[in-house]
Amino acid sequence: MAIGRHLPDEFALIARYFAPLARDPGAFGLADDVALMQPTPGHVHVLKVDTIVEGVHYLAGDPPDLVAKKLLRVNLSDLAAKGARPKGYLLALSLARDTTPEWLEGFARGLAEDQDAFGISLFGGDTTSTPGPTNLSLTAIGEAEAGRVPHRSGATAGEDVYVSGTLGDAALGLRAIRGELPALDESDRKYLAGRYRLPEPRIALGQAVAAIVSASIDISDGLAADLGHICDTSGVGAEVEFAALPLSPPARAALSLDPSLASDIVAAGDDYEILFTAPPERAAAVAAAARTASVAVTRIGRIVAGTGVAIRDATGRALSLAHPGYRHF
Amino acid sequence: MAIGRHLPDEFALIARYFAPLARDPGAFGLADDVALMQPTPGHVHVLKVDTIVEGVHYLAGDPPDLVAKKLLRVNLSDLAAKGARPKGYLLALSLARDTTPEWLEGFARGLAEDQDAFGISLFGGDTTSTPGPTNLSLTAIGEAEAGRVPHRSGATAGEDVYVSGTLGDAALGLRAIRGELPALDESDRKYLAGRYRLPEPRIALGQAVAAIVSASIDISDGLAADLGHICDTSGVGAEVEFAALPLSPPARAALSLDPSLASDIVAAGDDYEILFTAPPERAAAVAAAARTASVAVTRIGRIVAGTGVAIRDATGRALSLAHPGYRHF
Repeated sequence: MAIGRHLPDEFALIARYFAPLARDPGAFGLADDVALMQPTPGHVHVLKVDTIVEGVHYLAGDPPDLVAKKLLRVNLSDLAAKGARPKGYLLALSLARDTTPEWLEGFARGLAEDQDAFGISLFGGDTTSTPGPTNLSLTAIGEAEAGRVPHRSGATAGEDVYVSGTLGDAALGLRAIRGELPALDESDRKYLAGRYRLPEPRIALGQAVAAIVSASIDISDGLAADLGHICDTSGVGAEVEFAALPLSPPARAALSLDPSLASDIVAAGDDYEILFTAPPERAAAVAAAARTASVAVTRIGRIVAGTGVAIRDATGRALSLAHPGYRHF
Repeated sequence: MAIGRHLPDEFALIARYFAPLARDPGAFGLADDVALMQPTPGHVHVLKVDTIVEGVHYLAGDPPDLVAKKLLRVNLSDLAAKGARPKGYLLALSLARDTTPEWLEGFARGLAEDQDAFGISLFGGDTTSTPGPTNLSLTAIGEAEAGRVPHRSGATAGEDVYVSGTLGDAALGLRAIRGELPALDESDRKYLAGRYRLPEPRIALGQAVAAIVSASIDISDGLAADLGHICDTSGVGAEVEFAALPLSPPARAALSLDPSLASDIVAAGDDYEILFTAPPERAAAVAAAARTASVAVTRIGRIVAGTGVAIRDATGRALSLAHPGYRHF
């Protein structure tokens, strides 16, 4: 049977679109039932799975190459926060019956481009048909030095809190795509939309700081929520100054037009920056790692005794957040 | 937001149903973003992903513990055919909005029981909501001795073809469930339905024969199709005698009532037995491995020069198959 109204059967579909992506010898060109992977001696495999659903996490009209890249990159972002080097991925695709060859071609092209960008390979997968919306699941596999993988739970009072890149761009980008930021310059809207559509996993930075940091997480649920995860599992609290948060010029422009967008900066998701803590005496090492990775790293606050995350404005008043952290649905 | 009309939010749902299944230290009780796994020295990780969709691969009314076990076991069956010892799995669940706590409880209970049965742990996962039917994807991870993993492609002319257990039970079981075998004894129907609902991955046998066999695959698409996969990738053909195929007494009873069901034995899927080839001089070693694993192993034919799979009846005539091998949709 065909996998959809417009597609060839499963075997032909795999041969055409996905076998060319299985470049690692351990993937056997997708011609065996399993994939084989072995970490470099002294290393562990780091695994992460994530799913996106058409109409929930992306729209049917979104460019399929960007859908593929975002699916891959949100998983690579988790690997990055753990200091892992990405090696490859498995795909589980449930395709809606009206999926077109053009869509699949774009999807596979996006994967191919990001395989080159990140030096990874497809290792295996499963493709089926669904009467519902397309459901795309990806398992990313990387490797990291054994005993050197930072967890959420390692933060202690007195440490500095750092974040990579800039915050809030993706949330503002989604608003721009929805037409909610009409007063903003077109070039600013375009920049923010791009940050929403194509996150940049901080692979090099994650590896550079893995041995220095005490706790690390990637920001997918929003700064407040993800710093909350670090605090909850570490048994500490955190204080962050809003004025210290790194903002892109377009985000700053949006915020000056509408100060209520501050909640997007701290409480909306999809940043895919790395959030980590380190003792003050490692500040120089953190700065050196940032230079090595060519990524801006900003100290935004500190870990304190207690519980919870307090984000304060210039007057020291705690920010009131419109919603306390993005949850996936 | 809640994950469905009747369920708690994502974090509460994971804490309640899935964190108790994350028993391996590398899973961090699902409290970190990634899982860590390291193979035993000299071993490789063996990975496999499979998806089942409500209304396509199982029915909304099926017992959720059996749905969970089948999802897990079809993946473990692939690992078994490669001689791998299963270690654990990652889950990617897209739950329909009308999913009930009772369904999830049953699903998690099925996983817990099979974790005990196979000595494995949940390592990580992703849970989301879908406006479509429930979509369940599982990535199984095992380990096998490096350089000792049998592939599809190792068969050579003159070798014997073997199969574990019995064939066709699952296909006949599906017919029994659909009410298509009314003349069969109720106990026979029950036996066959059980074989459809709950496959038995041949883990012990797969490990026992891994070093002996030339090519190996698990039968998920049906004997003819999966032997065809071995032949295609190995550049050989195969001859099988229908009379030599191992049948359970209930399958034999069904076949004597309706001889046209022979096509279910050779061409329908879901057997999840191991199909492998070995040189004739290893026949005693194969028999010893079968005894070790306490599983019946039957020689059903041989590999020949040429291409294609011929399945012959007692008069030497090639069987005409109703359909040339189950394809997933």
